[in-house]
Amino acid sequence: MAYEQIIYDVKDGVATITLNRPDKLNAFTGTMMTEMIDAFDKIDADDDVRCVIVTGAGRAFCAGADLSAGAKTFDYDKRSDRPDRGSGKLELTYDMEEARDGGGRLTLRIFECLKPVIAAVNGAAVGVGSTMQLPMDIRIASDSARFGFVFARRGIVPEAASSFFLPRVVGISQALEWCYSGRVFDAQEALNGGLVKQVVPGGELLAVANALAREIADNTAPVSVALTRQMLWRGLGFQHPMDAHKIDSRAILARGRSGDAKEGVTSFLEKRTPAYPDKVSSNMPDFFPWWDEQKYG
Amino acid sequence: MAYEQIIYDVKDGVATITLNRPDKLNAFTGTMMTEMIDAFDKIDADDDVRCVIVTGAGRAFCAGADLSAGAKTFDYDKRSDRPDRGSGKLELTYDMEEARDGGGRLTLRIFECLKPVIAAVNGAAVGVGSTMQLPMDIRIASDSARFGFVFARRGIVPEAASSFFLPRVVGISQALEWCYSGRVFDAQEALNGGLVKQVVPGGELLAVANALAREIADNTAPVSVALTRQMLWRGLGFQHPMDAHKIDSRAILARGRSGDAKEGVTSFLEKRTPAYPDKVSSNMPDFFPWWDEQKYG
Amino acid sequence: MAYEQIIYDVKDGVATITLNRPDKLNAFTGTMMTEMIDAFDKIDADDDVRCVIVTGAGRAFCAGADLSAGAKTFDYDKRSDRPDRGSGKLELTYDMEEARDGGGRLTLRIFECLKPVIAAVNGAAVGVGSTMQLPMDIRIASDSARFGFVFARRGIVPEAASSFFLPRVVGISQALEWCYSGRVFDAQEALNGGLVKQVVPGGELLAVANALAREIADNTAPVSVALTRQMLWRGLGFQHPMDAHKIDSRAILARGRSGDAKEGVTSFLEKRTPAYPDKVSSNMPDFFPWWDEQKYG
Repeated sequence: MAYEQIIYDVKDGVATITLNRPDKLNAFTGTMMTEMIDAFDKIDADDDVRCVIVTGAGRAFCAGADLSAGAKTFDYDKRSDRPDRGSGKLELTYDMEEARDGGGRLTLRIFECLKPVIAAVNGAAVGVGSTMQLPMDIRIASDSARFGFVFARRGIVPEAASSFFLPRVVGISQALEWCYSGRVFDAQEALNGGLVKQVVPGGELLAVANALAREIADNTAPVSVALTRQMLWRGLGFQHPMDAHKIDSRAILARGRSGDAKEGVTSFLEKRTPAYPDKVSSNMPDFFPWWDEQKYG
Repeated sequence: MAYEQIIYDVKDGVATITLNRPDKLNAFTGTMMTEMIDAFDKIDADDDVRCVIVTGAGRAFCAGADLSAGAKTFDYDKRSDRPDRGSGKLELTYDMEEARDGGGRLTLRIFECLKPVIAAVNGAAVGVGSTMQLPMDIRIASDSARFGFVFARRGIVPEAASSFFLPRVVGISQALEWCYSGRVFDAQEALNGGLVKQVVPGGELLAVANALAREIADNTAPVSVALTRQMLWRGLGFQHPMDAHKIDSRAILARGRSGDAKEGVTSFLEKRTPAYPDKVSSNMPDFFPWWDEQKYG
Repeated sequence: MAYEQIIYDVKDGVATITLNRPDKLNAFTGTMMTEMIDAFDKIDADDDVRCVIVTGAGRAFCAGADLSAGAKTFDYDKRSDRPDRGSGKLELTYDMEEARDGGGRLTLRIFECLKPVIAAVNGAAVGVGSTMQLPMDIRIASDSARFGFVFARRGIVPEAASSFFLPRVVGISQALEWCYSGRVFDAQEALNGGLVKQVVPGGELLAVANALAREIADNTAPVSVALTRQMLWRGLGFQHPMDAHKIDSRAILARGRSGDAKEGVTSFLEKRTPAYPDKVSSNMPDFFPWWDEQKYG
């Protein structure tokens, strides 16, 4: 797939996805969604990718839905550019793929990713520009970044599965306050509210994100990191620590006998850089995935 | 219903519930519970109410259970002023409505509310005075406010469903520490621990709470806010982001074609104040509520 | 059971467990696990114990798994010192007790404890040295403490049910970042990230932990505290506040008629130190435990 609205680049083990409609402040479209999902498929399949950075071209990160369709922006049944092609037949059902929110298709794909994902928020991130970041693992903001869960000011609701993600990332009270007011807020408020880990001068943003990616890529075992990502994110649904114990006991047993564990311990004892033999593409343990994937319909 | 122990006032879209037993430091009673629940029923039914503020008359917010019955305060079976009327027959069962904790009846009602609820904590908030705030969305404290989850010092346990709410609002470790020690703490500690959003001088408390309510009332669509409140609070029980995606996809589809979405986008593009046409009383989408309400018995 | 690798001491209502392999930086072993579990059994059975402090002898808290077996450290099937005795037959199944992770056996036991548990982290706490702290209620660190979720640097995964505990203690983003990088970090970063409540000079650590334990022991009812611990920790699995309401209504009814409640209210009204009559060993309410314990197999 050739990309029109994103740039995909892999360098030294780090994949960078750059949202690339700078003249439209990287406003989100169905094309951008499809391309981002495709890029995450590539990322999971490519053992040379250890970490992912998502950022925006130009002065915005992502200004949200493209409002150029005006009043009918969110009235998908009247949009000839949507999958349903203005059929006038869209119905409220869980069985109709066309009615699925595009932001949620993307965030569910990111949720399933096997590599750490870092958002490098270079500018305005509004609506889906903010909610798409929530299943990313770590958010770093430029001091010119802005955020907004503006849905209630547009007559719609928080989307992209953000009613799952946002309270788990920033707490229920902060999530409610940002979604109720719908106001746009700056990087410092995002930091104070727990939405971003760090605020840095704009010129240092990508360097800081890459340094974080490098620390992971240079020191850790890829299969360990892939299992860790899914254990922690899916662990949000655990009801009892026994649910975790059942999985981590098997994972410790399976990975403890692996070449990665031998290399991890030996390189540590020898105070040298590790060279882990196992790959995400071929060495995930037999019990992975341990869940039945949820379906939309 | 005429109220004896609360004052209910609606002004410019904001309902204020004032706990009103100032000579008793607004100590909680069965009457106060009943009147508060009735007020929340009014609030949900009245489209002129966009936001709710809960505060206390006089120098306290709510000093907790009224201890004037002394040693038998919590021995409901010996209390002729309780529904069971000293029957000596109260049994431990989930089927007996009379045995339901009064604080929990109130917090479950607030949990179901369709309008944002702001606690303006003007003074001491002890026991149920603290736990009743937890299903409210945002807490603002006067610098003279005090809080206390004092149950273990009275020989009872945290009530009002606070074992659900408190760890989700402030985190499990802070929740445990406050409940174990049972000590009364000041507004600054409440701020540091994440219980309140902001501490302000007492004289500014209601103005700050009203400004927050106004920001919501003046800019956002009522149906969007009502859906958002239930999506986020009930989303605490989601096991997987797909649970959120199923609901927000339908909500985006339903609200995207509404007059509210057209007005939201148009007013934004025209840089003017929005005038949303839809009402909570009549325009909630067909799939709402999407849950089967849990029963006590 | 005579202890070889821990010291168990009870004084003035506070039990202190001291990890005691100072020449090995208190590295974790199967023996240490067994002895700690035994100590928690003693703690729950002994009404003279109101609170627990866990700390380390010498300059470390617990340096993690003992790596003296080198490359085969985590390859349990090749370890003649493990329960399976190098059988070469360990299989990935939930039915095989031998394959259960030792850290998880310990943290699940701590999860079930009926007394508050305070970690007094006196030095390095790495790997299971960090994850064993997560089901403890409150963590206080010496300024020389260090922490590390180093599993991905050893080719294994976060264990001890930490995929349940860590995101619930520090939030999902901080949990992911620490587990991805696997780096060792200092007490100040642990404080900033919400892992510890307080950082104190090393010489004051045990005094601060004991003062916290004393505040609980001197003021609160033991049965109230035991119920509170299980209500809040197990409440992390509640789906809806009604789940909490069902339990706390019964608990308020049962404890409200107890001698503890009469003493709690009376001593408060009389402004004197309470003397609660009820004991955890004999006065837990009939409906406790209200859950069916989860099994590993």
